[in-house]
Amino acid sequence: MIRITIVGLGLIGTSLGMALRSADASESPLGPVEVFGFDRDQRVMKEARGRLAIDRESRTLAEAVRDSNIVVVATPVQAVREVFGQLASLLPAGAVVTDVASTKAEVGAWAASLLPSGIAYVGGHPMAGKEQAGPGAADPDLFKGAVYCLTTSRSTPQPALDAVEALVRTVGAKPYYIDPEEHDAYVAGISHLPLLLSVGLMTITSRSPAWKEMAPLAATGFRDVSRLASGDPAMHRDIMLTNRQGLTRWINDMVGLLLDVREQLEAGDEAAVEDLLRRAKAERDAWLEMKPNMRPGEDAFLNRPEVERPNLLTFRLPNRKR
Amino acid sequence: MIRITIVGLGLIGTSLGMALRSADASESPLGPVEVFGFDRDQRVMKEARGRLAIDRESRTLAEAVRDSNIVVVATPVQAVREVFGQLASLLPAGAVVTDVASTKAEVGAWAASLLPSGIAYVGGHPMAGKEQAGPGAADPDLFKGAVYCLTTSRSTPQPALDAVEALVRTVGAKPYYIDPEEHDAYVAGISHLPLLLSVGLMTITSRSPAWKEMAPLAATGFRDVSRLASGDPAMHRDIMLTNRQGLTRWINDMVGLLLDVREQLEAGDEAAVEDLLRRAKAERDAWLEMKPNMRPGEDAFLNRPEVERPNLLTFRLPNRKR
Repeated sequence: MIRITIVGLGLIGTSLGMALRSADASESPLGPVEVFGFDRDQRVMKEARGRLAIDRESRTLAEAVRDSNIVVVATPVQAVREVFGQLASLLPAGAVVTDVASTKAEVGAWAASLLPSGIAYVGGHPMAGKEQAGPGAADPDLFKGAVYCLTTSRSTPQPALDAVEALVRTVGAKPYYIDPEEHDAYVAGISHLPLLLSVGLMTITSRSPAWKEMAPLAATGFRDVSRLASGDPAMHRDIMLTNRQGLTRWINDMVGLLLDVREQLEAGDEAAVEDLLRRAKAERDAWLEMKPNMRPGEDAFLNRPEVERPNLLTFRLPNRKR
Repeated sequence: MIRITIVGLGLIGTSLGMALRSADASESPLGPVEVFGFDRDQRVMKEARGRLAIDRESRTLAEAVRDSNIVVVATPVQAVREVFGQLASLLPAGAVVTDVASTKAEVGAWAASLLPSGIAYVGGHPMAGKEQAGPGAADPDLFKGAVYCLTTSRSTPQPALDAVEALVRTVGAKPYYIDPEEHDAYVAGISHLPLLLSVGLMTITSRSPAWKEMAPLAATGFRDVSRLASGDPAMHRDIMLTNRQGLTRWINDMVGLLLDVREQLEAGDEAAVEDLLRRAKAERDAWLEMKPNMRPGEDAFLNRPEVERPNLLTFRLPNRKR
């Protein structure tokens, strides 16, 4: 029996708990699991329990992580540092810590400096989400077919990697090993830039004096492009600030593109505008081809062979004497 | 029996035909209708016929519009001008012309200069669409609950207005009368700016040297914000160029916002970033509240009382002697 503790029971933490607890233990690479949970907000913890995401609530972080094999830190990014600091003295040797934060370089540095050497760290980032926050929006199928980034260092012990990879597969996601700096540069473009464009669209239209007249005309295109603006502001603030370098590079690119288009419009350059639109369409169509999990069906791109169920006996089990 | 001719059988034209032909004539404000169709592309016309969007194909535009009460021009914007020019000598006096183009000021000017005085023009723009083009993507329910902009001038005869409003209600949409210049300024912000942001996102990410590594990580947020980039390039080129003034204003606003955020990120100004995100979320949540047709349920915002079925006898029927 593997004991997993989820710290932070928002959308992702609660969805993970639901997915872990509803997995078929006989088929899951983790085998039978027991899920403990902790959230600073008692009501949130109760709601997560009510959604069957955790086997039991804990009064304190210490109680929640005692004898845990795997601790998943699923708080907003800025709180991860604080939680790592607290875990340092609470965790049994041999435990594995992972997180779900959207940026990985800074979080990895916190893990290296705050977690003691007996505790293994594997960075995690499931490429799945929703604009709604909190346990009420959680969904055990949120990770099905999703890419789940994993960042490691040379010193990460293999059993820790196996354990986190097993967790990822148990919730239906696909492990994707990546360097933390590369991860951050990439997600700045495919995740944080779209967020900023959504927020920017919503901001400049709604502050227009004509917004009252415009709003009823806005339809599905506006709805989809602005969707990410409905996400959790505290979480997104942390993401943007911990990945400001990556995001700034993409802001510069986007400003350059907008100014190019403005020039083309001013010049009435039909060919240039059409060329831009044709290329963008071709690229998006190619991306959708490559990402069948964005459509119904199988993800043929990440065709890593399924790993064997990791040998759980290789886990160094936590010291039970505490 | 009202005869309606649809010129241009792409996504919108075919969807309109399907919606008109599948409406219950005993409940529809138009009563029984007969739908003729014309498209320069014979295969497109055949496909629209196969989808039951039109009662019959026509070999020529002249044949298609002969004895029509209402002609709906559903071609891309730039082709509308050419079609208006051809219709001038083909239409019976008393016929009503409408279009579905995404910009209205320029199209209204074409109508005024090209259509003879015996032909009434009512500009139309259904706020509904899909990124897929062509009759294969058509959907008779595309307009259900959608806002349908109508632009008129003082000289527009009431029976012509009644006829187009009846058509709009028959396909399940909600008529929304608006000044053509206001329409263009508003849709530049809520429709053409989102399109440009989608295209820009797709363009700058896919031209990055790291795109191959980034692409598999892109998930639902990227998919939704980039969705409009998959739209029809020729149609979108026309839209952007016929509304370049409106769009340019929003490009300037967006560039300003991006540069503000870049500064906030460089300064590490957490409060400013969070404030931006909080306001955007509040505005989007308020917009969704106001637009229940973006969610399941009724559109409470546009609560104009249902009009009576227009008295069809007030239509000046086309001169049948031709």
